Amino acid sequence: MPNIANNPNRKSWISVPEHSDFPIQNIPFGVFLTKEDVVTIGTRIGDCAIDMGALQQLGYFDGIELTDDMFMQDTLNDFISDGKKTWRLVRNRLAELFDENNPKLRDHREHRDIVIFSINDIEMLLPVQIGDYTDFYSSKEHATNVGKMFRDPANALLPNWLHIPVGYHGRSSTIVPSGIPVHRPMGQTLPNGESTPVFGPSRLVDFELETAFITTDANILGENIPVNEAEDYIFGMVLLNDWSARDIQKWEYVPLGPFLAKNFATSISPWIVTMDALEAFRVKGPKQEPTPLPYLQQKGKHAYDINLEVYITPENASPTLVSKSNFKYMYWSMSQQLAHHTSNGCRVNSGDMMGSGTISGPTEDSYGSMLELTWSGQKPIKLSDGTERKFINDYDTVTMKGYCQNGSVRIGFGEVSSKLLPPFVRK
Amino acid sequence: MPNIANNPNRKSWISVPEHSDFPIQNIPFGVFLTKEDVVTIGTRIGDCAIDMGALQQLGYFDGIELTDDMFMQDTLNDFISDGKKTWRLVRNRLAELFDENNPKLRDHREHRDIVIFSINDIEMLLPVQIGDYTDFYSSKEHATNVGKMFRDPANALLPNWLHIPVGYHGRSSTIVPSGIPVHRPMGQTLPNGESTPVFGPSRLVDFELETAFITTDANILGENIPVNEAEDYIFGMVLLNDWSARDIQKWEYVPLGPFLAKNFATSISPWIVTMDALEAFRVKGPKQEPTPLPYLQQKGKHAYDINLEVYITPENASPTLVSKSNFKYMYWSMSQQLAHHTSNGCRVNSGDMMGSGTISGPTEDSYGSMLELTWSGQKPIKLSDGTERKFINDYDTVTMKGYCQNGSVRIGFGEVSSKLLPPFVRK
Repeated sequence: MPNIANNPNRKSWISVPEHSDFPIQNIPFGVFLTKEDVVTIGTRIGDCAIDMGALQQLGYFDGIELTDDMFMQDTLNDFISDGKKTWRLVRNRLAELFDENNPKLRDHREHRDIVIFSINDIEMLLPVQIGDYTDFYSSKEHATNVGKMFRDPANALLPNWLHIPVGYHGRSSTIVPSGIPVHRPMGQTLPNGESTPVFGPSRLVDFELETAFITTDANILGENIPVNEAEDYIFGMVLLNDWSARDIQKWEYVPLGPFLAKNFATSISPWIVTMDALEAFRVKGPKQEPTPLPYLQQKGKHAYDINLEVYITPENASPTLVSKSNFKYMYWSMSQQLAHHTSNGCRVNSGDMMGSGTISGPTEDSYGSMLELTWSGQKPIKLSDGTERKFINDYDTVTMKGYCQNGSVRIGFGEVSSKLLPPFVRK
Repeated sequence: MPNIANNPNRKSWISVPEHSDFPIQNIPFGVFLTKEDVVTIGTRIGDCAIDMGALQQLGYFDGIELTDDMFMQDTLNDFISDGKKTWRLVRNRLAELFDENNPKLRDHREHRDIVIFSINDIEMLLPVQIGDYTDFYSSKEHATNVGKMFRDPANALLPNWLHIPVGYHGRSSTIVPSGIPVHRPMGQTLPNGESTPVFGPSRLVDFELETAFITTDANILGENIPVNEAEDYIFGMVLLNDWSARDIQKWEYVPLGPFLAKNFATSISPWIVTMDALEAFRVKGPKQEPTPLPYLQQKGKHAYDINLEVYITPENASPTLVSKSNFKYMYWSMSQQLAHHTSNGCRVNSGDMMGSGTISGPTEDSYGSMLELTWSGQKPIKLSDGTERKFINDYDTVTMKGYCQNGSVRIGFGEVSSKLLPPFVRK
């Protein structure tokens, strides 16, 4: 089925501001709450959120095989479970419906009033119920930087890194959408030079610039997903801030990996941008040397040219851009990650989320964490209000943005933006 | 409210075989499927499964505040979410209803036929929808054995181990109930002495003898659960086999912990034995030296005297007992685990599961994995059919049993039993 929603020449009868992340070529999917306390699945064009539950009730998806309440739900899991063909049919239908030359809804004021909301009048919720959350570690630059700082500068990459898309399980219960503030975690740390740990607020709270992909039901228990089929099971992508407490991490992570240093919060952008929408932004990934084992070998373009930015905004100050990176730097592709994840028969469900790991580029201004940008606090970053940061301060807001640009078409993710609050105090 | 269900003198009008794990003092909770394809929440007395959905419809829970379909569900999550008071009211009601002196249901043949099933006529399902699964590493003997084999025999325990109930996130999507066979996983391993990995079937598939506890909604994001309140948030326990592929684990686990070596399958026993039922089996845990930090300090008895056994049964042979351990050996208590887990504000939901980690005792016949029992394959175990095992062979069934005994009262878990099949082959 042709992916007609990507037609770069299409314009919408909904006006789209210049440099918007959400032209009619995007058509992302999310879940939102209206002022009338209605929760619905929706999409976004320009600064308008569109109630797909209402659209379905009004018959605008007639002819597409969908369960009656497909979009009147509080998660996208069922829709995602329906598979790639349905995603494309629905996205194509939305593109046609909001095409400037289609009068059907455009000229039906009553329906427009029911269906269209200003983005300022709604609250974005988590788009999926995330069953399992895996986080990879697939940027060679990031793994090398961390290895240089914490292990052996001469052998920064561990022996398995070039053979395995290394990953670990994260915590689903603390994944929150953009806008939800996050508390500085308390935790156990070992002060430098001491042999006895202490308990208190983490002093080294960091962000990690990541993206994540959302899967559909991929396999039954025991079955693997071949690398060349893996893309069929990826619905779309979001931006992800993998909040990290470096001092807790350092003390706890040997031998079973990061735990409380990570699971106090993970923030994601609320609109899932489909892989169909990102199709035009495929690029070749970095050369993989040594050649991966056959179950990880793939041909063609499996990286995506997605510009990424991180801003820090202190309370009552303006944002400072602290990192400019790009998803195309990732060493391991999403299909390689998914093929590896299922190579042992691990079952993947609709709504599972897999993070990229910190996306660091080759230059010092493209590193994806404060740990790397300030080289473990040795080179503080100056913000526009004159203050300096080694890590994140209380009341700082960390904002990540991501977008692709191809001639006149810009497909973006919006942002994931969250404020760090002081430790939680029991009332 | 008194916990009258524990009365050791009570007898049921349902006959209970000698040495049964399920006398009327147990009253565990589970979910089962009948031959008529009905899924219901239920309990077990002797060799009878009891349909609590039907009991509720017939009015036998009248007077207890419950939603109308509380037990006509396919998971216990909502019931668990109702909290400790409700669990106790329901368990007490069941004890009274099945008391040999109570004629109400005993003498109502029609209702009995609707409500009571032979355990052989039903299929046990997963008792909860597990949102997040955490696995701890809280047996000092196990951590010491692993440290001796893989790291430094003179410094077997890592520096953080005596200060932190070390844990990591596991995978929820591959947790299966007892009876579901498990495929030997494929995976990447590094042959001894080589520098290039290979991909193929794991050659070192192992069990890990564990228990796990199931939580109720414990906190909001950011809030911690104090160690002395933690027990209020623990519903009950199951047996857990943390299937492990040692060769995959060895190559993948640095630096982010075990991943594909574990997430191909985790098997659990299907009946959740409540903490109320286990109350009489509290014992003092091992002395903790050095004293834990204040947020982990607790007084009183927080260990439980639960006998644990592991059997290996080759195809067409009889079972061989290969390990006898006990849950009381655990260094860190479940309350300490839960307090630590939430010390950073990590949110815990109804139906989350937390594994103990391998439960090894002090003697060589009480180790909780083949890795330790055979000392990494150096001392094979002889089975009753004359064959030897270093690890688990295809078509072997691994069975774990657990029970408490106090005078005449025995409270047990039944078993978690699963067969290892050869690697999955795509059809």
